[in-house]
Amino acid sequence: MTTLTITPVEGLPEIAPGDDLAQLIARCAADAIVPGAVVCVVQKLVSKAEGRLLDLADVDVSETVALLAASVDRDPRLVQVILDESAEIIRAERGVLICRTHHGYVCANAGIDQSNAGADDRLVLLPLDPDASARGLRADLERITGVAPLAVIVSDSFGRAWRTGQVDVALGVAGLDPSVPPEGLADRDGRPLAASEPAIADELAGAADLVRTKSGGQGVVVISGYGDHVTGRDGPGVGPLLRSRAEDLFGAREAEPPPA
Amino acid sequence: MTTLTITPVEGLPEIAPGDDLAQLIARCAADAIVPGAVVCVVQKLVSKAEGRLLDLADVDVSETVALLAASVDRDPRLVQVILDESAEIIRAERGVLICRTHHGYVCANAGIDQSNAGADDRLVLLPLDPDASARGLRADLERITGVAPLAVIVSDSFGRAWRTGQVDVALGVAGLDPSVPPEGLADRDGRPLAASEPAIADELAGAADLVRTKSGGQGVVVISGYGDHVTGRDGPGVGPLLRSRAEDLFGAREAEPPPA
Repeated sequence: MTTLTITPVEGLPEIAPGDDLAQLIARCAADAIVPGAVVCVVQKLVSKAEGRLLDLADVDVSETVALLAASVDRDPRLVQVILDESAEIIRAERGVLICRTHHGYVCANAGIDQSNAGADDRLVLLPLDPDASARGLRADLERITGVAPLAVIVSDSFGRAWRTGQVDVALGVAGLDPSVPPEGLADRDGRPLAASEPAIADELAGAADLVRTKSGGQGVVVISGYGDHVTGRDGPGVGPLLRSRAEDLFGAREAEPPPA
Repeated sequence: MTTLTITPVEGLPEIAPGDDLAQLIARCAADAIVPGAVVCVVQKLVSKAEGRLLDLADVDVSETVALLAASVDRDPRLVQVILDESAEIIRAERGVLICRTHHGYVCANAGIDQSNAGADDRLVLLPLDPDASARGLRADLERITGVAPLAVIVSDSFGRAWRTGQVDVALGVAGLDPSVPPEGLADRDGRPLAASEPAIADELAGAADLVRTKSGGQGVVVISGYGDHVTGRDGPGVGPLLRSRAEDLFGAREAEPPPA
């Protein structure tokens, strides 16, 4: 196993809807993008390029949602958007809605936020299909740079059960398998490692976050030295990392359906 | 922000109780240990050096535990040890006990396992105080190598709520703050980032895991380029990352007390 290097990409401009994100990344990261590189892009850049922005002023609030919003002391328009983006509300208290999004991610406020959105009442929603976003960026980056194979991870900072703080996790993946399956692995005494399946896409997303400052705009980070895991095909995306409620042992059990 | 490099340390021998782990690490990682380096050590090496090993043959099983063991289809002696190491059982099903250990970590089987323990009925328990282990290693490594400041993270692979696979997280930390507090941070539009507190100790632990293979024995990994966060003092340890049940929004609520 070789040494991994993790390099922030500097000089990216503010991203606006319709911008060619792959072109901008290729221009700013030309030196860092080598065969086998993993290009990690924060969700917010992808969402902005894809136009996943919403003005609070354009949101109509239902009566049920207005009641829920009062109970969690949040702007009813924001709560309406959070619910629209959610398949299920896991918990609603202390001003936070823990949601399962339509994609299947469990996170606070359906991954929606207002920071760095460029206007005080402008929301940034998660991409509609982060795996598709990652596949598109991977294809475009390989075409524009002529460097292959590459992998792309679209990430976001999520809170977790039982531990404070946030870590970046993968929302979309292309060009590598999101975890290393346990089949065939054995420990050093030859005992099978049945339970061990490192979620490498999440560990890569977290590693990329280490070289960013939230206020610094380093939304793209390139990891090199991990080429043994870069497959040369899109792969299964992030799906294998998403655990259904029925399979979950660590998280909450009781559910509330989102209000209509 | 500079580039981060993540280097596995090769050549460490099998660790046995009483071994001077810091001395062995210093010998094998001499080139990688530079001022500001973060030395990441897997829990199993620390536990072995500290003698946290137990033979299943030496375990007495209580009647209550025998019943629980039957219900989860596990060796009653193993279940007895898991319960002895736990303050609380969060869930028991499908052969897995999700525990809150006496330290406050929520993980499967109280972090105990049999892999790489060196004998089929030998268990490796978590260190009694991983923060103390990290502080000891930090002091010893700085003294032996003459290189300072260093940080040390003791890590383990944990499952998580809502997502499959495992990621390495920090069990013990010395020489850096485990998260970057949000105070004073603002986004690029000057809006306060109240909710954002990256759990850097966990992201570092996960990053280190990327250059290991479970069967390869690279239990020590050195991360350089992160010196801006290495404080030159032990710091608060991992405590600030541990969320109490009352504060937890993502995890399970209902509890079962461990059987007596």
